Amino acid sequence: MSPFTGSAARTTRWEHLRVEHADGVATVTLSRPEKLNALTFGAYADLRDLLAELSRERSVRALVLAGEGRGFCSGGDVDEIIGATFGLDTAQLLDFNRMTGQVVRAVRECPFPVIAALHGVAAGAGAVLALAADFRIADPTARFAFLFTRVGLSGGDMGAAYLLPRVVGLGHATRLLMLGDAVHALEAERIGLISELTEAGRADEAAQALARRLADGPALAYAQTKALLTAELDMPLAAAVELDAATQALLMNGEDYAEFHAAFTEKRPPKWRGR
Amino acid sequence: MSPFTGSAARTTRWEHLRVEHADGVATVTLSRPEKLNALTFGAYADLRDLLAELSRERSVRALVLAGEGRGFCSGGDVDEIIGATFGLDTAQLLDFNRMTGQVVRAVRECPFPVIAALHGVAAGAGAVLALAADFRIADPTARFAFLFTRVGLSGGDMGAAYLLPRVVGLGHATRLLMLGDAVHALEAERIGLISELTEAGRADEAAQALARRLADGPALAYAQTKALLTAELDMPLAAAVELDAATQALLMNGEDYAEFHAAFTEKRPPKWRGR
Amino acid sequence: MSPFTGSAARTTRWEHLRVEHADGVATVTLSRPEKLNALTFGAYADLRDLLAELSRERSVRALVLAGEGRGFCSGGDVDEIIGATFGLDTAQLLDFNRMTGQVVRAVRECPFPVIAALHGVAAGAGAVLALAADFRIADPTARFAFLFTRVGLSGGDMGAAYLLPRVVGLGHATRLLMLGDAVHALEAERIGLISELTEAGRADEAAQALARRLADGPALAYAQTKALLTAELDMPLAAAVELDAATQALLMNGEDYAEFHAAFTEKRPPKWRGR
Repeated sequence: MSPFTGSAARTTRWEHLRVEHADGVATVTLSRPEKLNALTFGAYADLRDLLAELSRERSVRALVLAGEGRGFCSGGDVDEIIGATFGLDTAQLLDFNRMTGQVVRAVRECPFPVIAALHGVAAGAGAVLALAADFRIADPTARFAFLFTRVGLSGGDMGAAYLLPRVVGLGHATRLLMLGDAVHALEAERIGLISELTEAGRADEAAQALARRLADGPALAYAQTKALLTAELDMPLAAAVELDAATQALLMNGEDYAEFHAAFTEKRPPKWRGR
Repeated sequence: MSPFTGSAARTTRWEHLRVEHADGVATVTLSRPEKLNALTFGAYADLRDLLAELSRERSVRALVLAGEGRGFCSGGDVDEIIGATFGLDTAQLLDFNRMTGQVVRAVRECPFPVIAALHGVAAGAGAVLALAADFRIADPTARFAFLFTRVGLSGGDMGAAYLLPRVVGLGHATRLLMLGDAVHALEAERIGLISELTEAGRADEAAQALARRLADGPALAYAQTKALLTAELDMPLAAAVELDAATQALLMNGEDYAEFHAAFTEKRPPKWRGR
Repeated sequence: MSPFTGSAARTTRWEHLRVEHADGVATVTLSRPEKLNALTFGAYADLRDLLAELSRERSVRALVLAGEGRGFCSGGDVDEIIGATFGLDTAQLLDFNRMTGQVVRAVRECPFPVIAALHGVAAGAGAVLALAADFRIADPTARFAFLFTRVGLSGGDMGAAYLLPRVVGLGHATRLLMLGDAVHALEAERIGLISELTEAGRADEAAQALARRLADGPALAYAQTKALLTAELDMPLAAAVELDAATQALLMNGEDYAEFHAAFTEKRPPKWRGR
């Protein structure tokens, strides 16, 4: 836990998400299977607030984002979000869209790796949530559909027009965001959109195994790797090299680096402390 | 048509391009088949001016860029451009190279998707024109050759050293721009350089079908998707997320978003207005 | 040779590298085969200083970076670097990490293409050295392992968190830098991490052949192509297009461009001067 928590109380119950903790691994499950885990205003707000809490508490070392039932997430609920937006004024529309973007920023900027465990559909906001994760572990039933234009909106939603070209290149990203066609697991693997393709029904298990590996490993090194990957997309080479040098000098004063060397010298596996 | 046209007259005849309009789709055909559609000073100027006119008039919703005859475009004409440059002074050389760059900027920045229909050779400036398009639909005879170094010039021509790494990654881009070797359709598909590979002789037809789909769809949503993809290559994540939020809030006040919801509720296909 | 050399003497002997020159091609060989060419403080310093000397002298037109023995480079020596860092104070740690970053910047910014000839392991700093090169020519035994987190350090080392996403996309880069798992030649080819896959044992030969081709070609055009590819990763489109225009206008006043046109007109191969 971080020494830098203040007056803010921990949220005791997340009403719109299922949140489990197990020895440094948080598992967040979208859990409206009867609606293909369609997102609601409450689910977005909970994702935003949960990631902020976990980030300031430093209570987890890896997070799995999963979906219950037949798929990962079908995106914003047509009734509870799309329908409801017609009752919002302009300031409220902006607030809503900023909130969804804050979720993506939180996924990119939280100090632990996020692993999306994917099966079935990842559509609309569900596809962008997966895209924002550090790892996308998918089984062969997984399919992505950035279907924003299908509802008359911009394919650049929640940072998708920033992230997707940086993951699969501008050509594929244009096709996916402009047309909103489904990308199935095999094509997703071919174009670099998924990190690992598992056997059918094994994505959750593989995601948990990776989260365990990350949580048991040199977690500060992983957190810094993530932070640098995120930051250096927006930095010139010279600045990136300087940031790397400062980061590495910092970590060379850390416990895990010393432990690696001790373990190597003693010909035993390192006992990582994550700091 | 845009209400924001002023005194400037429409160009009544494009002498260096074949331009056709059909219900929101413009088709621009490079039409010097006896020269493999080699570009001339006039063709560049016409491309620059045509895209500017179409952009301010908002008269088209999708544009197909095609080549007549055996190939798409063999690049700048060896006699009429390369030869002629030896008679230009330094200011004129800069003007010429700025003009070619303006064409690429216009393709990236015009408020409608551009689809390159590719068969046979797309070489030099022809390869960059195709690269600047939003979609590259190619048949198996298509091949790209960024052959600038073959004539003693920089592979970074007309924005190619900016665009190509963002489409295929820095490794492939370096190889293609430095060496100028031909990239055939199959390799182009493998590395993400083409959007769709058609059967032989079917690229024009597939490009027209896509243009029709785009012109008949939520054209403002497509235009904004393109604008965000273009802009967010040059923006940090936080700014991109804010731009997405503002854009989406805007489009949620638009006609097509309301139409989607009405159609969904009434269980009928949406009638897109493109606004 | 450049007219802009001053008082600084050429280094007469590189103690930590094997350096050979042959008609415009420099070959730099990591040559501690008994240690899998593990890098030492001296080797880093020599790479930094050699690239600076070659850059200011303009004495070479292409550089091959190779490794002697069973592999390319196993990275920083566990004893001579990792062990030694425990005796360094904070300023020295920063100095060391800046030096390694300077090597990467020098590889990206030197005015000639760098070709990494890869077989066997390219691990840690060895993987980043290869990544920084313009071309990676590998045989089927080659494998990359960005194993920084395996020693408790950040995967963003020497600019890797900047470069790798721009070569293979953010998804693959995250996986490779976070986990440090080995990437074998076939996967490396699939994700765009290598430029050319050769038959077993032929990477050095293929690298020399490419270096020869580059050194005998329009070397200034190649150098500018490299400079633009490097710079335009950090520039917006409008600036990149302007840089391209200025560069091309410059080269249109150069000897090689005139030679191309003369040769074309006379139906003979051009005799490139490299300027």
